[in-house]
This record gives sequence, structure tokens and C-alpha cells, in this order.
Amino acid sequence: MKNRVTSLFEIELPIIQGGMVWCSGWKLASAVSNNGGLGLLGAGSMYPEVLREHIQKMKIATDKPFGVNVPLLYPDIEKLMEIIISEGVKIIFTSAGNPTTWTQKLKEEGLIVVHVVSSAKFAIKAANAGVDAIVAEGFEAGGHNGREETTTMCLIPIVKEAIQIPLIAAGGIGSGNSMAAAFALGAEGVQIGSRFAASKESSAHDLYKKAIIASKEGDTALTLKSITPVRLLKNSFYQQVLLAEERGATKEELISLLGKRRAKAGIFEGELEEGELEVGQISAAISKLESVEEIILDIKDTFRTCIHQLTSLTI
Amino acid sequence: MKNRVTSLFEIELPIIQGGMVWCSGWKLASAVSNNGGLGLLGAGSMYPEVLREHIQKMKIATDKPFGVNVPLLYPDIEKLMEIIISEGVKIIFTSAGNPTTWTQKLKEEGLIVVHVVSSAKFAIKAANAGVDAIVAEGFEAGGHNGREETTTMCLIPIVKEAIQIPLIAAGGIGSGNSMAAAFALGAEGVQIGSRFAASKESSAHDLYKKAIIASKEGDTALTLKSITPVRLLKNSFYQQVLLAEERGATKEELISLLGKRRAKAGIFEGELEEGELEVGQISAAISKLESVEEIILDIKDTFRTCIHQLTSLTI
Repeated sequence: MKNRVTSLFEIELPIIQGGMVWCSGWKLASAVSNNGGLGLLGAGSMYPEVLREHIQKMKIATDKPFGVNVPLLYPDIEKLMEIIISEGVKIIFTSAGNPTTWTQKLKEEGLIVVHVVSSAKFAIKAANAGVDAIVAEGFEAGGHNGREETTTMCLIPIVKEAIQIPLIAAGGIGSGNSMAAAFALGAEGVQIGSRFAASKESSAHDLYKKAIIASKEGDTALTLKSITPVRLLKNSFYQQVLLAEERGATKEELISLLGKRRAKAGIFEGELEEGELEVGQISAAISKLESVEEIILDIKDTFRTCIHQLTSLTI
Repeated sequence: MKNRVTSLFEIELPIIQGGMVWCSGWKLASAVSNNGGLGLLGAGSMYPEVLREHIQKMKIATDKPFGVNVPLLYPDIEKLMEIIISEGVKIIFTSAGNPTTWTQKLKEEGLIVVHVVSSAKFAIKAANAGVDAIVAEGFEAGGHNGREETTTMCLIPIVKEAIQIPLIAAGGIGSGNSMAAAFALGAEGVQIGSRFAASKESSAHDLYKKAIIASKEGDTALTLKSITPVRLLKNSFYQQVLLAEERGATKEELISLLGKRRAKAGIFEGELEEGELEVGQISAAISKLESVEEIILDIKDTFRTCIHQLTSLTI
């Protein structure tokens, strides 16, 4: 497909794999890039030197474009950016922070910069900061999430109306049908998280992948809204948060309950009850363990069939 | 358009106007039916004899198919159903209650029965009860809403997978683009609420319509989750609910705070601060007061353009 998103990244398919903590190492990202999409390393769960190692392995594993996702609230951000620049990474997706702080610096270094937002307000701010494209992520997305709770169906048209630069939709997308829906709403690309999190190449723990595959509708919730809203699979940890909130726990108490390594425990170590199992609502539609190649083939097939069916509609 | 939804209702366009409390009287519903869609009278805010009057006016105002939406928790439901049957209504949309109670009786009387759900679980239950079609309504929809918080983008494919009967998508739909998106996800029709609530023919108060038109992203919230989740515009009443919840109010206290006539006050009488202003997230994309004819023309135009653009996509 030729559009502004595939041209910007010089990729074949406008399918971006979300840079997810504890899932998106070089194995997952290189598989996505090698299959025509854009693989992203998830720096959020990597020490700077670990990221360097993953970038170096990526360069061996693929000669296709790839990128790094960086949460701008990362503690040692200067060091991380220094590695990204010195290793010659060409594409960066920033999230969870102010896009004005880094965008110009990264652009001067020749990087393509994309910022992830959950509202038109922040999309405009990011566009004004000079980013090359926007990822707009709806309420149904896994992991950290916006306070406005705007769903992908409502968010994409509103953001599209607000900005001129290319728009990538995220949240609730896991098939060619939802990719076609995102394009109908005005997106020129999609970012897919949960389905790749549960793929063979994901670095997540097998038990976490199995939990995604087993999950049904209503099994995720957006929680910890008073700290930083995060969507996760409901488990014992989630119930503890609910109970704490019901008894009127303060922000500090919730931060202390969350602790330091819940996401690693849940996603990387497979602690299904006490860990933080970040995943999107679309996990309910994910029903098997597949390779990235199988996932991308299925998305292409279902997208083609869907577009073909839509073509016959007259009104 | 010819599909299972237009055939079932014998209508021209697979566009259903939601049967909304205090908005959907005979003026709105007849305008929608006369413009090729399916108009629904919203019985939820009508005394039985008021509904009878609206049905009789509908029969004068249109010779096209129309229906009635009935929340099954309606207190005087026997009387209401008796009127619907004796007045010869052909189509009923039931919501907020158990579809097994009334579906067979209504079918025996020759009515087409559609049930509104927010999950695949209840879609299957309604299909087993014998309904002719399902409306699946996502988290972004206005008014009463499901506990699972599944968004339209995730809900439609999951429900589609679960049932064989025709599926109508609701929640976040207000344009031809979102209608095309709903079709991409597997729907064969759309139910549109907020955009018609703010139309000239809606019986809602002008101030309520103006509030919808003025609203921006993040201006609605799903609230009163411990009683019955409802999406409304954030106002003073909403803030009072938040404060009550923060101080740990019981269910009974919240029911008492809600009181008896908040929705009427907000929607019908234009009490913007103390009323309950039920509306969906898509209100942020509604920017002017239009007639039903203008709305339906715009939906047709944007749908056609959208399908045409999608047709050119190859992958």
C-alpha cells in the first residue's frame, strides 16, 4: 500500500507494532519489520544499555526500517536518547510526556518523530512541536491510557479533523476488519499492540500470552485512574486496587500498592495474579498463539476481504 | 442499500434512530422514517397514553415503517405493550431488561423484535430468545450503558462472531465514515443517537441541543457505575456524583442523589447544571443544529465518499 504512512517510514504495510513494555524486544520488532510492517523496540522496560543491545541485534536481524518507542517520562531519558541517536536509529515513537522537549533535537539529528496521544488537544500540541505523524490511541487500548476515555471510534475522526499530518490509529485494532474501520475513520495506518504481545516472537512470558488468549469480553479494565490510568487484565492485583479505592485509599497508598515491578512480574515473569497484565480490550478477540508472519498474513487477508465487501455497498 | 437490515424493516437506508428518552417523539421519528431510515419512538420517557398519542401521530406523519423503543424495566410495562400491540406497531426495540420475558409474546403478535445489548453474552441470550436482530452498543454511547465497558470497535467483531442474525452497531456513530467503519467491523446497520438528539426535530430542549453542539472531547463521562452506568455531559450534577462517590456514598445515597426526574430536567427542560444530560462521546464531533434531512444527506454523502476512498486501497 502506498500512502503517507508507508512513504514516511519506507515500509510496505501501514501496520505498526506497538512498542510494548516486556514484549517488544528485537525478536518481535524484527519479525514485524521483516514481514513488511514497522517493528518498534519498547524502550520503556529496558535499561539504556539493554536498549543498545536490542538495537544492535535489530540491525543484524533485519535490513528493513524499524523504530524505538520511548516513554518521555523514562527516568534516564538523556542517556536513552544518546544511545538512540548514536546507534543511528531512524524512527522514534514518543509517548507519555511532553513532545516539545525532545522533538526538535531529534529532528535535527535526522530522526522521524511520531508522538502518541489520546486526544485532539495533545495531537495539535505534538503537531505544533513538529512531529511527523501522530498515533491516536483510544480508551480500549492496553497499558497507559488517556484520562478523557475517548474511544478509537470517536477519537480518530476528531483528531483527523484537528491535524494535517498522517494519523495512525491505535486501540481495539487486531484484524484486517478493524484496520479497514480505522481507515474509514480517517487513519492512514494502524498500531497494533495486544495481538503482537501474544505472538510467538513476543518476549512476554508464555503464561501472559495464554492469559490473553483465554480472556473474554469484560476481562480487562482501565484502573488506577487517580495515578496513571492503565488497562490490564482483571486479576488479584486489580481486585486489590479496587478494594483500596473503595476504602478511599490516597494516591500515595495506591502508588505504594502498585510498587515498582508489577508490569515485569506480570508480563515478563508470568505472575498472573500479582502482576500487572497490561493488555487491550481486543484481547477478547485473540484466540490463538501465532507467529508474526501468520498474524500479518491474516490481517492482510481479512483487510482485503473486508475492503472487497465494502466496495459492493451502495447507498 | 439492500441487506438483511433494510429487508427486515423494509427501509431504504440501514440507519436507525435511537429511541432516546425526551428526544424521540413522533416529530423526530417520523422525519427519520420519511428520509429513508427507521425512526423509533422512545417510550422510556412516555406515560402509556402519551405513547399511544405519539404512535397515532406517527401514523399520520409517515406511511413508512417505524418502531418503538421500550426499556424492559419500564414500570407499567404490561400496559405499554398492550398499547404497542393494539395500535398495530410492527417493530419494537427492547433494551435494559431480559429479552426472554417478552420476545415470544411480541413475535406471536407479529412484531419484529430487536434487542439492545452491550456484550456478546447478552447477544447470544437475546438470539436464543428469538429476536430478529441485535443492536450492540459500545461504551462510547450516550445514556445507559454496559458494565463491561467494551467499545464499539471491540464489541462489534466479538458479537458478530457470536450470532448469526443481523447486527446493528451503536455507540460513537454519527457520520458516514463511522457508519462505514461499523460495516467494516461486521454490522449491517447503524443506530445513531446523539446526532439525532441534537437535530431540529428532536423534542429535547434547545439548551440541551446547544450543549451537545458546544461539547468537546472529554466532556462526557460514564458515571453512576454502582447503580446503572450512564454516559452524560459533565455538569454540576456529575460533579456532585463524583464528590459523593469520593466520600464513599452508598448505593442508596446515590439513588437518592439521582432522584426521579433528572433526565427530564436536563434533556427536556434544559436545566444544564442540575439535569442529567445523557449523550454519547460523539457529541464532540457534532457542530451544528441540523434537520434530520440534512443529517441523513450528510451521512449518505460521507458514506459514499468513504467507501469510494476505501475501494482504492490495496494491500
